[in-house]
Amino acid sequence: MIKKVDHIGIAVKSLEQTLPFYTNVLKLTLLAIEEVDTQKVKVAFLQAGQTKLELLEPTSEESPIAKFIEKRGEGIHHVALGVESIEERIIEMNEKGIRMIDEQPRLGAGGAHIAFMHPKSTSGVLYELCEKKGMKG
Amino acid sequence: MIKKVDHIGIAVKSLEQTLPFYTNVLKLTLLAIEEVDTQKVKVAFLQAGQTKLELLEPTSEESPIAKFIEKRGEGIHHVALGVESIEERIIEMNEKGIRMIDEQPRLGAGGAHIAFMHPKSTSGVLYELCEKKGMKG
Repeated sequence: MIKKVDHIGIAVKSLEQTLPFYTNVLKLTLLAIEEVDTQKVKVAFLQAGQTKLELLEPTSEESPIAKFIEKRGEGIHHVALGVESIEERIIEMNEKGIRMIDEQPRLGAGGAHIAFMHPKSTSGVLYELCEKKGMKG
Repeated sequence: MIKKVDHIGIAVKSLEQTLPFYTNVLKLTLLAIEEVDTQKVKVAFLQAGQTKLELLEPTSEESPIAKFIEKRGEGIHHVALGVESIEERIIEMNEKGIRMIDEQPRLGAGGAHIAFMHPKSTSGVLYELCEKKGMKG
């Protein structure tokens, strides 16, 4: 069911200030930077083996990421699990009593189809199911 | 330098209560459960592609994981980056002005050689460098 850890979402105040650590110190490859208007974030993707690190900078105070940083500080925000047939996976989660934040997949960064699970159902971890239809990696 | 995300450390109050979500709902393979006395934790390893999820249950109130849960609740504790030649990596980190919690590698779960970086140097993420000498995966 789970193919891999697709990415780890990390809340940062500023991509400009944070990226040098990832590219110059850890020497990870920066794949792309894109804006996701629905979530009011600017996202930088870095490759680490099979998994991407997804740095999330809020572009507005109303961004969920801005609220996260205000409450908990910068740091790890979510873990995305790579799946196939995300609609079926959501049905399966419901059947097993797992509360979903997204009952329908929605479009995430990089054109992925995503759905968040509620941390109350997962012992405190914000897990995202993530399907990349017809996409590599 | 970074080969992969070796594992994601997740603080939980109880392996017994948390494991069914990972094994029955997400259907991940449970690889092993072991106690790490130095950290006062019981650890369960689950495989998700190239990466392991490492569930950490404190076995004493003095465990760093017990303190983490008390302060922040259950959830993601650290991200471990798989490296080779960890001693050289630590020297490199120091040269680049990154503060290390462990200036010398120490023995972690699964017999790995590990060293934590200080979250003040990494925009709030507790990163672990992790080398598995002569070990698979």
